[in-house]
Amino acid sequence: MQEEQSTDGRRRVVVAAVGPNVESGRYAVKRTLGDEVGAWADLVIDGHDQLAAVLLVRGPVGGAWRELPMRPAGPRWPDRWAADFAVDALGTWEFAVEAWVDRFASWRHGFERKFAAGQEIDVELRIGEALVREAAARAAAAGAAADARALTLAADGLVDPAAPPAARAAAALSPGLASLSAAHPDRALSTRSPRPLPVLVERERARFTSWYEFFPRSLGGGARHGTLRDAAAMLPYVAGLGFDVVYLPPIHPIGRTYRKGPNNSLTAGPGDPGSPWAIGAAEGGHTELHPELGTLEDFAALVARADELGMEIALDVAFQAAPDHPWVSEHPEWFVRRPDGSFQYAENPPKKYQDVYPFDFGCDDWRGLWRALADVFLTWASRGVRVFRVDNPHTKPVPFWRWCLAEVRARYPDAVFLAEAFTRPLMLHELAKVGFSQSYTYFTWRTSKRELEGYLRELRGPELSEYLRPSFWPNTPDILPENLQVGGRASFALRLVLAATLAASYGIYGPSFELCDAGALPDREEYRDSEKYQLRAWDLVAPQSLRHLIARVNRIRREHPALQHDEGLAFHRCDDDALIVYSKTHGGGDPVLVVVNLDPFHKRSGWIELDAAALGLPREGSYQVHDLISDARYLWSGARNYVELDPASTPAHVFVIRRQVRREQNFDYYL
Amino acid sequence: MQEEQSTDGRRRVVVAAVGPNVESGRYAVKRTLGDEVGAWADLVIDGHDQLAAVLLVRGPVGGAWRELPMRPAGPRWPDRWAADFAVDALGTWEFAVEAWVDRFASWRHGFERKFAAGQEIDVELRIGEALVREAAARAAAAGAAADARALTLAADGLVDPAAPPAARAAAALSPGLASLSAAHPDRALSTRSPRPLPVLVERERARFTSWYEFFPRSLGGGARHGTLRDAAAMLPYVAGLGFDVVYLPPIHPIGRTYRKGPNNSLTAGPGDPGSPWAIGAAEGGHTELHPELGTLEDFAALVARADELGMEIALDVAFQAAPDHPWVSEHPEWFVRRPDGSFQYAENPPKKYQDVYPFDFGCDDWRGLWRALADVFLTWASRGVRVFRVDNPHTKPVPFWRWCLAEVRARYPDAVFLAEAFTRPLMLHELAKVGFSQSYTYFTWRTSKRELEGYLRELRGPELSEYLRPSFWPNTPDILPENLQVGGRASFALRLVLAATLAASYGIYGPSFELCDAGALPDREEYRDSEKYQLRAWDLVAPQSLRHLIARVNRIRREHPALQHDEGLAFHRCDDDALIVYSKTHGGGDPVLVVVNLDPFHKRSGWIELDAAALGLPREGSYQVHDLISDARYLWSGARNYVELDPASTPAHVFVIRRQVRREQNFDYYL
Repeated sequence: MQEEQSTDGRRRVVVAAVGPNVESGRYAVKRTLGDEVGAWADLVIDGHDQLAAVLLVRGPVGGAWRELPMRPAGPRWPDRWAADFAVDALGTWEFAVEAWVDRFASWRHGFERKFAAGQEIDVELRIGEALVREAAARAAAAGAAADARALTLAADGLVDPAAPPAARAAAALSPGLASLSAAHPDRALSTRSPRPLPVLVERERARFTSWYEFFPRSLGGGARHGTLRDAAAMLPYVAGLGFDVVYLPPIHPIGRTYRKGPNNSLTAGPGDPGSPWAIGAAEGGHTELHPELGTLEDFAALVARADELGMEIALDVAFQAAPDHPWVSEHPEWFVRRPDGSFQYAENPPKKYQDVYPFDFGCDDWRGLWRALADVFLTWASRGVRVFRVDNPHTKPVPFWRWCLAEVRARYPDAVFLAEAFTRPLMLHELAKVGFSQSYTYFTWRTSKRELEGYLRELRGPELSEYLRPSFWPNTPDILPENLQVGGRASFALRLVLAATLAASYGIYGPSFELCDAGALPDREEYRDSEKYQLRAWDLVAPQSLRHLIARVNRIRREHPALQHDEGLAFHRCDDDALIVYSKTHGGGDPVLVVVNLDPFHKRSGWIELDAAALGLPREGSYQVHDLISDARYLWSGARNYVELDPASTPAHVFVIRRQVRREQNFDYYL
Repeated sequence: MQEEQSTDGRRRVVVAAVGPNVESGRYAVKRTLGDEVGAWADLVIDGHDQLAAVLLVRGPVGGAWRELPMRPAGPRWPDRWAADFAVDALGTWEFAVEAWVDRFASWRHGFERKFAAGQEIDVELRIGEALVREAAARAAAAGAAADARALTLAADGLVDPAAPPAARAAAALSPGLASLSAAHPDRALSTRSPRPLPVLVERERARFTSWYEFFPRSLGGGARHGTLRDAAAMLPYVAGLGFDVVYLPPIHPIGRTYRKGPNNSLTAGPGDPGSPWAIGAAEGGHTELHPELGTLEDFAALVARADELGMEIALDVAFQAAPDHPWVSEHPEWFVRRPDGSFQYAENPPKKYQDVYPFDFGCDDWRGLWRALADVFLTWASRGVRVFRVDNPHTKPVPFWRWCLAEVRARYPDAVFLAEAFTRPLMLHELAKVGFSQSYTYFTWRTSKRELEGYLRELRGPELSEYLRPSFWPNTPDILPENLQVGGRASFALRLVLAATLAASYGIYGPSFELCDAGALPDREEYRDSEKYQLRAWDLVAPQSLRHLIARVNRIRREHPALQHDEGLAFHRCDDDALIVYSKTHGGGDPVLVVVNLDPFHKRSGWIELDAAALGLPREGSYQVHDLISDARYLWSGARNYVELDPASTPAHVFVIRRQVRREQNFDYYL
């Protein structure tokens, strides 16, 4: 049943498992540039023989296979072997394992014990001699003449009748001979792992991103339509908040037929701007700019300004067409036609979305359609965009995404894709598997301690965490969740801290978010007077603004590597169910400990019980915790400590634990 | 990265996962004859379309593929589909999944909602009409003329200008049309699961076995060498104990060169019988009988007698040769030769086992050797043996076992193999993966509540439990564990109950076990005066015998299906750490609840906390628990109940819970 085993039954080593992997290599695990990939293999051999193994590694696109020696992973993992490799290029890497019986090492292992027990060694040394001569022959065949000579001399020495037995035994057991022999192994009967396992290597922003979404058209102060130049002028504010990706809703011409009015009303007035997701008009489609936003020169200036500020522009890619989209007339074959000749609009019966035609991904010319859609990414990439937020990917075929993301990455391996897959878990997971860098998640609706802990444990599961990178969003233009509608400013603050410290990537839809806009349509998660359908004006310096808290939290994220990885999250107990306590420890630097009061209305206090071992805390004595939000410092001791958080001021502590304060330093004060 | 997807991008359904499986189908899951295999598939589709799926199933050896409809698995498992199939033949079955978009069902789903919302339906019905006509064409092409006619009539009806809209809508939504259309699906763009998943189907004894091991040669009463006739005379005693597999240590000629004496001494006296595992002498090798045991006629009589008593004879297969084995001279190429021309004996340096030569599985004539070894199984199978206990399988190559077990099963699909893989976990698991029916486990050394619960949870893990069937042995001729050496009769009793109720398969090495023989070599797990090296005499009716307890426990196992499966094990809390509490609920019948006092020295008592929901207990009111060992009955209520066990009498309760006592029955008493 192991297809990888050749028919030669003498290949005795079984490569029982290799990792990291997703579904035995059906999908890639995800890593970022510069990571050390900790590869491992479970190697099984009958009897007492010694093994040797190499990791075979190949970089992206035509990279040659390299070999790295594998070593036993240690006593905690019997029969597990390990090797690390650094991924220093973007793209899909592959690795495999090859293992074999090291006959010289096996012999040496037994010989050592027999010699120590005072057993007869003459015949044993003749067995060793033969193995060393075989290694010499392999060395010679490989052109390693010096090694071949050294091995031949060593073989002669093992059976030199003039040498005393102790000297011959010492020569047999010398580390030099062991490594010389290991350098010319007999791999004729080695076993390879079933198939190479892929690793998708992306740049750091695929893992660690702070997203800020806004509508450029609302930047005209309410009186006029905002432009890309206004957006460029907005960038210093966003940079000041500490974000690194500025994400714009679609910036393409907006359809006029069936255009939606304010609050998603069915008819738009003459001045209504329409939904940016109804893409395409006489002025063009997915590769053109909405004329009221400006020109491609303005866009280039915006990209350049973001770059100056250490940020990137991310575009929204929404694959659907307004009835006025040029493709509707140029490529009617890319759409579904009804028996009366009309184009099929989007619908979720009985709801109709007549302002939008879905593409027919399964049309006869699917290859042409797919090509055109991939070219949308490539066009914007050629204009300097490398980060894409993909709208509703779950309503397009999974095979399309698999092909399209690979197609874009082949040209732009630094492209980053965020899936707005607000759908059922399996589709959410599938889209991550086929290549989306990051995924929107259900965080938006997880509010209690039990829900949050359970959800994070699920995301950190051994397989899911290898391919799904969560992006936590407290709000989006589509979703003003109940928790923000009713919880007031404190709920915005606490959701911000949760999103920014639980996940390495998070985002907010602003300025709505930092201004604590909680106006919703009745009994809906939908914003009242949503910017999706009308222009808004925002007072960025309004007193309720959370901009200072956000700036501080983003600075903490930048300064503390533990918050830049999803790994290393641990929850700690607290006797108050409204206080959630967790630590992050990955990536070097001090551990970060977060306490959030999930109750936006009441002061809550309680005793927390830290997993001291996990945090590397001293068993006795005290240590300092420094709240990076309030700048307060506390001296704690042991695992049990008291916390108290008032949502009226700040609903969270973000502590850094100063483990490295040495006793001697404090001692000076008392001299 | 999904190799199963064809290059046609229009195959939109993703078969994300299929099960049950072991490592994505690299190995077979195990089932027994008559089982219903609960197959499932996770199916992912973009958008709102409706799916249809079939399970493809193929029986062993040339079976044709059958199709079974799959259904959604229910709201607890969104996007999971399921179908069961019964396995009614021995051998390796295969299954796969094929799924596709059901375009008529998708249309019908939307149409139903649009019609209910009072929307225009004329154009909609024309879409439906076209889909029904396509189904009619497929029916006609498949030769289903009646279906084709019915579908054509239905299509006509959908657009019949004479029919009122409500009537046409009702016809469109009729269940008859739905199933007629579903019977002729468009599977041109269906998706198949990556590769068929194997299921190894064995007979019931592969899952549920009570093993009894004894040495026939000790049945001569001590004065003479026991025989197979003595063994036949012993069978009624073993049947009376309730065992169903009688396992004999090797019964082949025993080597004379380097024969071991009593207690594994290096030299044997003239009357010493030697170790049965030193196989082969002038009289023959693995396919011959030791002359002192009797003839092949005696063996046939033994097999027949066992069959009469509802039992089977199991043989020990130990692939190694004494220096006198005929193969040593006939096939010296099957052994390793040392440089001085001598044969390499077994060793684990500095230990030497000069009475035994290992086979060289990697010799040039490995094919010839492997064939001869498989023929050992086939020879004994031709003599009526179908159950084999394999000695030290972990010192032979895994690829050999994979080939050999399949080779034997090809001729004897009812063969059952027990692996004596007392080795590291990965090899233990690997041997189970490549086909051993049952495996010795670490149960022998797991004694505390924490150890037992942890180990059973590991064995019941989602993947391990699909391929590894544990066989629990409190003792073997090689192992008299410390817990039995020091715990007296009570420790034998409690280990018996644990083994027989925690695992569906278990075994003892008797009569040593039931007579509570605790004589060990100092500081060793080895029996003193072991039957491995000398004849022993046993007094089967000695007062300390546990035969009555064993007979009762085996009867309980036969009468309660819950104990015949490894599934359905749950642990329950108890405030005394020496009292372990667990229930078994699989296989129909009443749940069985077991309480064992792990302390062989002291009476222990405590409050147990039952998982009432898992056991289907009433939330209020009382229920009867009936101790099948003591025959006592208790009336319990709720989850919390008191237990007390004195090791001086019986160290365990094996309760059956009588859930079905109806209140009305009791009520009669009070009328």
